[in-house]
Amino acid sequence: MSYNSFGHIFRVTTWGESHGPAIGCVIDGVPSMLPIDEAEIQHFLDKRKPGQNRFMTQRQEADQVKILSGTFEGVTTGTPVSLMIENTDQRSKDYGDIKDKFRPGHADFTYMEKYGIRDYRGGGRSSARETACRVAAGAVARKILGGGIQVKGALVQIGEHKINPGNWDWDEVNNNPFWCPDKSMVPVWEKYLDDIRKKGSSIGAVIEVRAIGVPAGIGAPVYAKLDSDLAAAMMSINAVKGVEIGEGFNAARLTGEENADEMYRDDDGNPAIRTNHAGGILGGISSGKEIICRFAVKPTSSILTPRKTVDRHGRETEIITKGRHDPCVGIRAVPVGEAMMACVLADHILLHRAQQG
Amino acid sequence: MSYNSFGHIFRVTTWGESHGPAIGCVIDGVPSMLPIDEAEIQHFLDKRKPGQNRFMTQRQEADQVKILSGTFEGVTTGTPVSLMIENTDQRSKDYGDIKDKFRPGHADFTYMEKYGIRDYRGGGRSSARETACRVAAGAVARKILGGGIQVKGALVQIGEHKINPGNWDWDEVNNNPFWCPDKSMVPVWEKYLDDIRKKGSSIGAVIEVRAIGVPAGIGAPVYAKLDSDLAAAMMSINAVKGVEIGEGFNAARLTGEENADEMYRDDDGNPAIRTNHAGGILGGISSGKEIICRFAVKPTSSILTPRKTVDRHGRETEIITKGRHDPCVGIRAVPVGEAMMACVLADHILLHRAQQG
Amino acid sequence: MSYNSFGHIFRVTTWGESHGPAIGCVIDGVPSMLPIDEAEIQHFLDKRKPGQNRFMTQRQEADQVKILSGTFEGVTTGTPVSLMIENTDQRSKDYGDIKDKFRPGHADFTYMEKYGIRDYRGGGRSSARETACRVAAGAVARKILGGGIQVKGALVQIGEHKINPGNWDWDEVNNNPFWCPDKSMVPVWEKYLDDIRKKGSSIGAVIEVRAIGVPAGIGAPVYAKLDSDLAAAMMSINAVKGVEIGEGFNAARLTGEENADEMYRDDDGNPAIRTNHAGGILGGISSGKEIICRFAVKPTSSILTPRKTVDRHGRETEIITKGRHDPCVGIRAVPVGEAMMACVLADHILLHRAQQG
Amino acid sequence: MSYNSFGHIFRVTTWGESHGPAIGCVIDGVPSMLPIDEAEIQHFLDKRKPGQNRFMTQRQEADQVKILSGTFEGVTTGTPVSLMIENTDQRSKDYGDIKDKFRPGHADFTYMEKYGIRDYRGGGRSSARETACRVAAGAVARKILGGGIQVKGALVQIGEHKINPGNWDWDEVNNNPFWCPDKSMVPVWEKYLDDIRKKGSSIGAVIEVRAIGVPAGIGAPVYAKLDSDLAAAMMSINAVKGVEIGEGFNAARLTGEENADEMYRDDDGNPAIRTNHAGGILGGISSGKEIICRFAVKPTSSILTPRKTVDRHGRETEIITKGRHDPCVGIRAVPVGEAMMACVLADHILLHRAQQG
Repeated sequence: MSYNSFGHIFRVTTWGESHGPAIGCVIDGVPSMLPIDEAEIQHFLDKRKPGQNRFMTQRQEADQVKILSGTFEGVTTGTPVSLMIENTDQRSKDYGDIKDKFRPGHADFTYMEKYGIRDYRGGGRSSARETACRVAAGAVARKILGGGIQVKGALVQIGEHKINPGNWDWDEVNNNPFWCPDKSMVPVWEKYLDDIRKKGSSIGAVIEVRAIGVPAGIGAPVYAKLDSDLAAAMMSINAVKGVEIGEGFNAARLTGEENADEMYRDDDGNPAIRTNHAGGILGGISSGKEIICRFAVKPTSSILTPRKTVDRHGRETEIITKGRHDPCVGIRAVPVGEAMMACVLADHILLHRAQQG
Repeated sequence: MSYNSFGHIFRVTTWGESHGPAIGCVIDGVPSMLPIDEAEIQHFLDKRKPGQNRFMTQRQEADQVKILSGTFEGVTTGTPVSLMIENTDQRSKDYGDIKDKFRPGHADFTYMEKYGIRDYRGGGRSSARETACRVAAGAVARKILGGGIQVKGALVQIGEHKINPGNWDWDEVNNNPFWCPDKSMVPVWEKYLDDIRKKGSSIGAVIEVRAIGVPAGIGAPVYAKLDSDLAAAMMSINAVKGVEIGEGFNAARLTGEENADEMYRDDDGNPAIRTNHAGGILGGISSGKEIICRFAVKPTSSILTPRKTVDRHGRETEIITKGRHDPCVGIRAVPVGEAMMACVLADHILLHRAQQG
Repeated sequence: MSYNSFGHIFRVTTWGESHGPAIGCVIDGVPSMLPIDEAEIQHFLDKRKPGQNRFMTQRQEADQVKILSGTFEGVTTGTPVSLMIENTDQRSKDYGDIKDKFRPGHADFTYMEKYGIRDYRGGGRSSARETACRVAAGAVARKILGGGIQVKGALVQIGEHKINPGNWDWDEVNNNPFWCPDKSMVPVWEKYLDDIRKKGSSIGAVIEVRAIGVPAGIGAPVYAKLDSDLAAAMMSINAVKGVEIGEGFNAARLTGEENADEMYRDDDGNPAIRTNHAGGILGGISSGKEIICRFAVKPTSSILTPRKTVDRHGRETEIITKGRHDPCVGIRAVPVGEAMMACVLADHILLHRAQQG
Repeated sequence: MSYNSFGHIFRVTTWGESHGPAIGCVIDGVPSMLPIDEAEIQHFLDKRKPGQNRFMTQRQEADQVKILSGTFEGVTTGTPVSLMIENTDQRSKDYGDIKDKFRPGHADFTYMEKYGIRDYRGGGRSSARETACRVAAGAVARKILGGGIQVKGALVQIGEHKINPGNWDWDEVNNNPFWCPDKSMVPVWEKYLDDIRKKGSSIGAVIEVRAIGVPAGIGAPVYAKLDSDLAAAMMSINAVKGVEIGEGFNAARLTGEENADEMYRDDDGNPAIRTNHAGGILGGISSGKEIICRFAVKPTSSILTPRKTVDRHGRETEIITKGRHDPCVGIRAVPVGEAMMACVLADHILLHRAQQG
């Protein structure tokens, strides 16, 4: 409802700028008695942390989370969970160059147009650093999902290089610096990204997030559809320009016969769905199949090649962004996408319980 | 926030089933003193109305809108605008066949799983008939946008057949039964869809909606981003499986150099943006360029070819959907997409005024 | 959240003006499978209906409710319940006199200041007629409460004449035209109100609403407290100027010793509370005792004695309101207060189920 | 909407327990370019701070506020303002006695019933310490109100001792430890409260908060009425049991003639209202007169006289609360009530701007 919150009753509000004293989030609506501690949240933050390999920004943020409220003796109390991450590596001097210039393709200009002011240091509020709070919230959301529901993400495309879905191996995802599920693609991406990185360039990517084990019946039929809430959640991640469910844009090419997910009676005598073109959601409500969501991330606009732009005084100029940036922000978007999926599902599971008991 | 409402302060709540006495919507947060009458709303409803040509369902719904509240002496009063459309052509017998069977790819099964009951007549609440209310609300939203902002949509792909963007002609859009902006594509689609229709099949499509004249600075930076609200709005339309802004999924293929929309000083001395890979939105806030949103619609699951399914008692069976359905629901989704864009923009214009005056 | 809705997830949106074609409400978040029909809702509307005795306005509104959506084969489907009441007795000529003059103590002036326009016929949206929608929504809310929770209201004060709480008899409430629980007060009020009525005057009142059978643990600790939601709900009823829970304003006079509701072990070995100064709510959460809420209603501003005022052109003048008004609107506020209590409780029961299962 | 937030678009979310590391709030929807610093917020927090005189709890909380986000170079940026107050004086041993016992009249029992767990140290989330966050948010809200609107509060009743409204002197309010506007009442309250304090008892109170300078037209007509939002805001403050606007409960005793606030043409030729029985709000919308709101605070349940209760195992026992408590929490509720009024007004001013420009 407000600008910096999402979720209906599992509701996350984030705050903080890249170069202020801290960033954080407040999570409201968390059920009580869920065991949670800082280490468990930290586990997910560490997956998103910069500087882990040469394909990520070399900033060194500890991203150490503190629980400030909402737990007592190791479990949640039902009151708001406040999480804080102090900003430690804030080399403000790196950003002095962009103090007065608008980076092309960046939010610098639009923030200025909207607010008449912007915290130019590291992108301020528009910094992807905000996504650390999403990851932290996602760790709490997973406690609501419980062991029966798994949310997992992978990178499926960098530039023109798409994985072969036939090679998908979840075990492979943690074995390479890209969260890549296709072993054969790893060396291709390594070589390709090294080249991008050395040129000071950047490249886009596609991420796929799946939820396994979501029972049928979760979601809502018209506006807070499970898929429309997922679309909003993913599109709200920095640099995302597209979101798909199931067949996604490919559905435009299919006939009704091809796209229909036929039903059958499973071994337990329950109705079941054979294929999953729908990506696990029909009419805004989960079907019991895997929920499959993909989103596209544009290349970061912070590159070393000079680009034409204007400064805040309206003068034409050029800009090079010298900061330590990600050649492919899509890599670090994988744990963020997982977190958003977890938050949306937790919210809808509570909503379903509210209405239907 | 709730299941059947959307918008933050320009807030639309829809109600009604396909085969109940009526459908309608309540629009809250409308500024006072806007001139509006039923004819103006009807104009947009007529664009979406079924039965206008052979490429649409042959249902004959008058879709006549009544204003029940919120206006006085021809202008809005600031109180809720209640709109109602009575259901007139409700051939319930057509749907008797699907009373107990779940249509593959349809919400029949998931509604049943969620609610334990469903109004099977014409899809009940999951019917695309609900979108008539969106179109009506969009007509009211356009009054808030005023003359300076235009929202226009077009169909850009049916099946494998994409338009040539170089042929784009807005004037052509109203000259063919497809809202197609590329004259050369019209005969191709005609032939292709006739074939689909005669086979009792269906096909997917892609719709593009643009807003021209939106000033820079509209939107919000983190969760209620203009693009994330658009994504939710479009994804909430029946049958939509994907949403893109600007380059969309193609952004995954671009380098930072290619994707950067360089800035310059325009003739009035104001900062301006040259290209529009971003689709008019940076950091969730409008940039002053055209806002460009595309969404993909799957083929309707109501087809004449028998599909395997189960009935509500869990028995395996086959189903043919004999109702009068659209061979390509994407056509009628064009005015719906326009309406959703208009509603999102109206909402964000009011939100911006709230915060920034 | 928006202007014409209330409730968090059992969410009611009302619309309609006193002299438009109809009024109505949309109720979202209703669980499925609740049996409900028009007769059941009508039962509660009839309690509020004008013209039932000489102490009420002599307007003759049938107040006949129609269910337009959200039920199928006699039960709710989980989709929005849309209710409509057509306006039948709209003697617009009665209101011609106040077309241009602001009634002192009425919303005429403030609506004009806010919106620059007002539907002057019968008060338009500010008419107490809107409360019929609340009563209808309350009837649906009661289905969620089930048989175990009863919500009952009574009139406890008219002018200076307060009932004796020691005489409270719920059975008496339906035996007199005032919903008075104290038999000995009925003749006093009859004589007193006849006098007020004959003078064309009006008088204030106090209503008490109780909920019996609410289990401990319903509510929320800080802002959406059960008592703060009740306060908002009651204060939103036309003409209400004060709301109390339990001891209410009298609590200002009590010491901690007097006000403490001591606890004991009941016959079943469960913790229990002896007295109920708190009115059944501690820290925003129900305690298991009766929930007791009182609200004060001002005298209607529509009286026959001339009052000094100004017209919309700013000229000083006098006004007499000739319409058919209630000498004590507090009487008809009793079923409205009950309905608001039922809605707040239904909402919080669903919210509790969401968070705590 | 959620449990720990209030406001529609000026939206405050608070978090934190009395004896955790910190408490705080996130304020969303703040317009940009408002000058604000920690000292300005601290000024209001200091008014609420414990230990300032013998009529307050002797806890020594520094209540030092830190701005963690949302400002840059001394002004707001339009992004969420995050405020934190670290807990410094947390004598946990004082509360060991109440670890297992429910204090009569306290939220101990209801939290346990709702959540199955409670942070018993200092009341945890139900501690009045949470109100420090309200005061901090109120300081930010006042920046939106600007210089033209003043929000001021006073204590008008302790126990049976009411001030004489005829003696009201705003200048006197800051001259005594009670925020008492009636000089003649100060010695009476001193003697009375000393007696209460020495007995280890407590007493209730009534607070009046006024807003001066609010223009006509602010508010909303039906559910988010200015008065219903004020009622919710005040009732959500710890220990509040009743809320009134203008005449409040006294309106029940008045006739329509007595209660009517007649209108006239003021010296500038504008419509004006003579008396102010309505307390500045008609039909949920401000009338241009002073907004007057009163609320009653119960005596704190933490007293030295033993009270009968049960422990968490259901055994009957007695309890004495030995902590350092306020003999009359109403005193420290004055700046809290002011803050809530400021927040509600700021929210409605932004809402009005949204809808009506």
